[in-house]
Amino acid sequence: MAAALALARRGLGRVWPNPAVGCVLVQADAEGDEVVGRGWTQPGGRPHAEVEALVRAGERARGATAYVTLEPCSHHGQTPPCADALVTAGVARVVVALTDPDPRVAGRGLARLRAAGVRVDEGLRSEEARLVTAGFLSRVTAGRSLVTVKAATTLDGRIATAAGESRWITGPRARALGHRLRATHDAIAVGIGTALVDDPMLDCRLPGLEDRSPVRVVFDGALRLPIGSRLAASADRRPVWLLCRAADLETAEGRARRDRLEGRGVRVLPVPADTAGRVDPRAALQALGDAGLTRLLVEGGGRLIGALLAADVVDHLAWMQAPRVLGDGARPGVAGFGVDRLADCANFAPLDWMPIGPDMVLWARRVGD
Amino acid sequence: MAAALALARRGLGRVWPNPAVGCVLVQADAEGDEVVGRGWTQPGGRPHAEVEALVRAGERARGATAYVTLEPCSHHGQTPPCADALVTAGVARVVVALTDPDPRVAGRGLARLRAAGVRVDEGLRSEEARLVTAGFLSRVTAGRSLVTVKAATTLDGRIATAAGESRWITGPRARALGHRLRATHDAIAVGIGTALVDDPMLDCRLPGLEDRSPVRVVFDGALRLPIGSRLAASADRRPVWLLCRAADLETAEGRARRDRLEGRGVRVLPVPADTAGRVDPRAALQALGDAGLTRLLVEGGGRLIGALLAADVVDHLAWMQAPRVLGDGARPGVAGFGVDRLADCANFAPLDWMPIGPDMVLWARRVGD
Repeated sequence: MAAALALARRGLGRVWPNPAVGCVLVQADAEGDEVVGRGWTQPGGRPHAEVEALVRAGERARGATAYVTLEPCSHHGQTPPCADALVTAGVARVVVALTDPDPRVAGRGLARLRAAGVRVDEGLRSEEARLVTAGFLSRVTAGRSLVTVKAATTLDGRIATAAGESRWITGPRARALGHRLRATHDAIAVGIGTALVDDPMLDCRLPGLEDRSPVRVVFDGALRLPIGSRLAASADRRPVWLLCRAADLETAEGRARRDRLEGRGVRVLPVPADTAGRVDPRAALQALGDAGLTRLLVEGGGRLIGALLAADVVDHLAWMQAPRVLGDGARPGVAGFGVDRLADCANFAPLDWMPIGPDMVLWARRVGD
Repeated sequence: MAAALALARRGLGRVWPNPAVGCVLVQADAEGDEVVGRGWTQPGGRPHAEVEALVRAGERARGATAYVTLEPCSHHGQTPPCADALVTAGVARVVVALTDPDPRVAGRGLARLRAAGVRVDEGLRSEEARLVTAGFLSRVTAGRSLVTVKAATTLDGRIATAAGESRWITGPRARALGHRLRATHDAIAVGIGTALVDDPMLDCRLPGLEDRSPVRVVFDGALRLPIGSRLAASADRRPVWLLCRAADLETAEGRARRDRLEGRGVRVLPVPADTAGRVDPRAALQALGDAGLTRLLVEGGGRLIGALLAADVVDHLAWMQAPRVLGDGARPGVAGFGVDRLADCANFAPLDWMPIGPDMVLWARRVGD
C-alpha cells in the first residue's frame, strides 16, 4: 500500500476533478510476492489507476491482490467501473485504504467486488490515504476545494520590509519547494493586492515541471486585475480564474471590466460578499469546488490568508520560516485576522517539520481534521 | 574531548565570572585507553576543572593525557595556576580545544606546559568549545555579556493576544526547555514593560534545578519596578539587578526610587541612555559584563528584544515556535525594530532546529560569529 500511495501522489495537481489514486497488483507464488502491475490516475483524471495497473499486468492479474488507495468506482462515468474491470480480470483480493465518500460510489464499489466473490479488506494505511486524497474528500464531502496555505516568513512572521521588499525571505531550496508545491496543486490563488504589487505569473518554474503549472486564481472582488497584467496577458495559454463579488457585476462598469477580462480568456466566477464586503471565502471555495478544483494552494498576501483563517477554511499549512528577523515595522504574513482569546487561536497539528537549507518548513493540518 | 565538553556544560550558568571548563584525564596502556579522572568548573567558578580531574586521578595522573576544553590558566588568582598543577601531577600530554583569550592567560598556559616538557596539542573540537565558552569569550574579548534571546511565538511571530493573554503560546515541553535555559545562564533579563505586566519571578522551576535560578535583571530606565513586585520582594533571597538611566539618578525622585529599591536588596546599575532615550543596550551589557555576568538570557518583551536587535548585540537565539496563528491584531514578539532593506535584516545561522512536542525550537547564532 505504501507503493500504491507513492503512485497516487504522482497524480496530485493533474487529475482534478478526480481523485489521485494509486494501484499495485501483486502475485503471490512459492517464490514470494511479485509486483505484476502498477498504475496511477492519469493526467486529466483518466484512465483510472486500477485500469492502468490491469493493462500492465495483462494475464498475470488473474488471482492477484490489488492494493488501491481509494475504493474502486462502481458507476459508469466516462469510463466503465473499475470494480467491474478488477472482477473481469480475475483479481482474487482487493485491499483498499479508504472507502470513497462520493455518493455515486460510497461502498458500492466494495459491495460489487464482494458480490463477485472477490475478497475485500479495508483501512490499510487509511491515515496516509486520507492526506493524499484530502482535496477530493473536501470537494465531495465539504463541497469546496481543500486549502493549503503556503507562507514564507521570518521568525517574527514577516513577509516583506515596510517598503515591500520581499525577494527573498527564504533561501533557494525553500523557494524550489514552493514551486514543487505548485505542481501538486490544481490551482494557485493570490489576493488582488499581491497580483497588483507583484504582477506574478504563478507558474511552476522547476526544470521538467513547467507543464505542471496549475490554474491561476485571483481573489479580486472588484475586478481590478489589469488587462495588461502578466496573468491576464497569459490567460489564453494557462487558465486564469477570477473570483469577484456578484454585486460588482450589477453595474455597467463591473460588467465592462468582466467583458474585457473574459475577452482575454480570463474566467470570471461571481460569488457573494461576506459581512466585511469582501469575496466570501467559503462561497469562493465552493465555487472553485463546483468548477472541479480539489486542491488550492494559497500563496498570499497576508490579507487573503487572514480572511481564510478567519473563515476557518485553512486545511493544510506549508509554512516556511527563515532564521532572520525583520521587526514590527515590516509586513505581516497574516493580516486582518485577530482573536481576542488564546483559546480561539488558529491551531494546526504538525505533520512534519522539515529543515530545508537554512530554513524550516512546517507541514501541518487543521486541528481536528 | 566530547566528554570534556559535556562536563564543561554542567557548569553553565553557575561559574560566572569564570568560564565553564571540562577536563578528562586518560591513561593509555596495553589494554587501551582508560579515563582516570574527570572534572568540571565548580559552582562559583572554583575549583577549576583540571584540579578537579587531578584530585580524582591521584597518582594515576602521572603520564596521562589531559583533554581540556579551554587553555589551562597560568596566573595566580584565587587558586594556583592549573598549568602548574598539571605539570606537578606529571601529566604527559595536554590537548586543548581553545586557547584562552583572557589577557592574563592568552597562550601563557600552553607555553608554561611546553616549557615543562609536556606535549601540547590545540584546536580539537574548537567549534563546539567556542559555543560552550561563548559567554566567557564575549566578556573577555567584547567586554560584555553574551546575549541569548529566548522567544516563544506563533508562526506569525506573536507572543500574546491583543488583550495581552500569553499563557501559553507553546506547549509544556517547550516551556520546560525554557526553564532549563534559565538554569544554564548566569542571568535572565526582561524589560520593565514585561516586569510590570507579568510580575514574574524569573526563577528556574524545574524539579531539582530550583537552586540553579540565576540573577534576575530588569532593563528599567526610569526605575519603575514597584517595591511590591515579586522581583523586588524576593531580592533579598535571589539577586535582582536593575539597569537604569544614569540621568534618572540626577533627580531627587530618581535617587529616592533607587534608595527604596536598594533597601529591598535590589542592585541598581546606572548606564547612559541611547539616542532614543532608553537604557543603551551596549552600555547595559558592558555594565553586566563588568559585574561578572557572562551569559544573559533575554526573555522579552518585544521592545527589549527589538532594542537588542537594533543594537546588533543578539548573539544567540532560542526561538520556539508553536504551530498556530494569532494574526496581526496580536502582540509582536519583536517591537520597535525595523529595517528598510532586506539586506539589513537580522540574520542568524541555524545551529539546530529541534522539534519539541508540537513546537519547534531554533538554536541559532548571529551570522559571522
